[in-house]
Amino acid sequence: MDKSSTLTKIGEFGLIRMIEKLVKAPNSSVVKGIGDDAAVLKWNKAKYLLFTCDMLIEDVHFRSNMRSSDIGRKALACSISDIAAMGGLPKYAIISIGLPKNLKISFVRSLYNGINNIARRFKVDIVGGDTNRSKKIIIDVTMIGEVEKESLVLRSSAKANDLIFVTGALGGSFKSGRHLTFIPRLQEARLLVKNYSLNSMIDISDGLAQDLGHILDSSDKGALVYERAIPKHKSASIKEALYNGEDYELLFTLSNQQAHKLIDDIAAKKIKFPVTAIGQIIERKNGFTIIDSRGVRKPLKPRGFRHF
Amino acid sequence: MDKSSTLTKIGEFGLIRMIEKLVKAPNSSVVKGIGDDAAVLKWNKAKYLLFTCDMLIEDVHFRSNMRSSDIGRKALACSISDIAAMGGLPKYAIISIGLPKNLKISFVRSLYNGINNIARRFKVDIVGGDTNRSKKIIIDVTMIGEVEKESLVLRSSAKANDLIFVTGALGGSFKSGRHLTFIPRLQEARLLVKNYSLNSMIDISDGLAQDLGHILDSSDKGALVYERAIPKHKSASIKEALYNGEDYELLFTLSNQQAHKLIDDIAAKKIKFPVTAIGQIIERKNGFTIIDSRGVRKPLKPRGFRHF
Repeated sequence: MDKSSTLTKIGEFGLIRMIEKLVKAPNSSVVKGIGDDAAVLKWNKAKYLLFTCDMLIEDVHFRSNMRSSDIGRKALACSISDIAAMGGLPKYAIISIGLPKNLKISFVRSLYNGINNIARRFKVDIVGGDTNRSKKIIIDVTMIGEVEKESLVLRSSAKANDLIFVTGALGGSFKSGRHLTFIPRLQEARLLVKNYSLNSMIDISDGLAQDLGHILDSSDKGALVYERAIPKHKSASIKEALYNGEDYELLFTLSNQQAHKLIDDIAAKKIKFPVTAIGQIIERKNGFTIIDSRGVRKPLKPRGFRHF
Repeated sequence: MDKSSTLTKIGEFGLIRMIEKLVKAPNSSVVKGIGDDAAVLKWNKAKYLLFTCDMLIEDVHFRSNMRSSDIGRKALACSISDIAAMGGLPKYAIISIGLPKNLKISFVRSLYNGINNIARRFKVDIVGGDTNRSKKIIIDVTMIGEVEKESLVLRSSAKANDLIFVTGALGGSFKSGRHLTFIPRLQEARLLVKNYSLNSMIDISDGLAQDLGHILDSSDKGALVYERAIPKHKSASIKEALYNGEDYELLFTLSNQQAHKLIDDIAAKKIKFPVTAIGQIIERKNGFTIIDSRGVRKPLKPRGFRHF
């Protein structure tokens, strides 16, 4: 690659792969480093420590004319969703902020009220931070969580013949403003890991097609998805359901036996939140395929929101 | 305070106090939340977990024409210094970055080479991150460290009659470029906490006067400092030594008995790095005072670098 190449050329995932190669190979206390919703670190006999971060930048992730309590809320909710997608519980957060010096104090107060409300709801302690002057508003939340060893779910363990499930409905999160007000699926994730043996899980932040692509890449598998089965948010098109980011629903896979247990429990109304089977994991050589509403097989591109 | 007040009005420390009040009171597993170099969390019988972050922003903390390996190096070094100032050892880091899309790949490669070199030197594992598009370059490092319970040193435990010490020499860090290339005083801090019983410690990031002010505020104490005793970097003035930020030397206090043990060890050349006694902790009611080079007592203002 020539020296004048820019990030646009390699794209966001090219950048992440480059970083992954550049940083030192983690030592044996690192169960999982770069490449999942959170890092997994050895902790004690029963539990792993989870460690994740999410940065929100003005004019990239939000605009300064949005309600600042919603912005603060979202900053924390993204990291809670990451911890949920590992099967864990959030515990502590640190918040680095960059703020313009002429920003109104009332804006900052409301920002922290939003942070505080969701922190209290999900039992997260804000234990520190760093405050900086900046032209654009920047909020970076880093969160520590914990997960029982038997509850940990990675992206990289999907098996051929697993059924693919998604919680809730997808599409139109930005358009509708839901990207600011979504509720992280923590309760749902905890119920799932406590009652079923999940093979893989991710939260849908980049879009269904792209995040399923992350599971497939990490697990070296393919998938067959049924367009008609995908739960769309009201007023969202199938394209929006497939490619829009920031739904923060859970996408997970279960063995056939576990999937039937879940489907029986849904029928028996033991599961009180919407969960839908949308397809199946297959061998990688059989590709990443969608069967459209007319029954036609098409290759599915793992595209969605990308920063570069 | 009227609704139109801006951050300039309350200043950086007013902002931090406001945030401290706004966030939920931490639960009992939080040994120390906001208000020290790192948060201290309960972990296991022998050790506490340390948790800290430092955000660097282009045109605030560095310029894009500086060597990007130095910028990466500094981003990690600031957090290592925070962990050192608690008496602990750094373990894991997560790095959130914001990068302009037309940034050269070679810049990013060199940035991570700088990060990687210092991570390897100080045995820190980079275990995750978040990549974002941004107009200005932003690097936020969050670090997890550990500290044996008996080695933990807070800002808030300085005692009257403690002697005040500082490592190295102070002043002119920005002017000389040392703010990019400084070596965090981790080895020195570990030697100190293993051999002496420190009452308080902080790293000098805002400047000697201001960071000593942080110890005094947290400990509800005053101080008497001898201008002639302050170790100045060559070519730095006493004003620069007192008020310049980013020296990242250690500032700590010891009881008289422990101080004499340290002074004896320095005389016996058991201590191989520069440490200087610069004054004494006194009761708060007796103020924060400097004795200048002509022997005149003057009030010392805890000012230094501030973002707002």
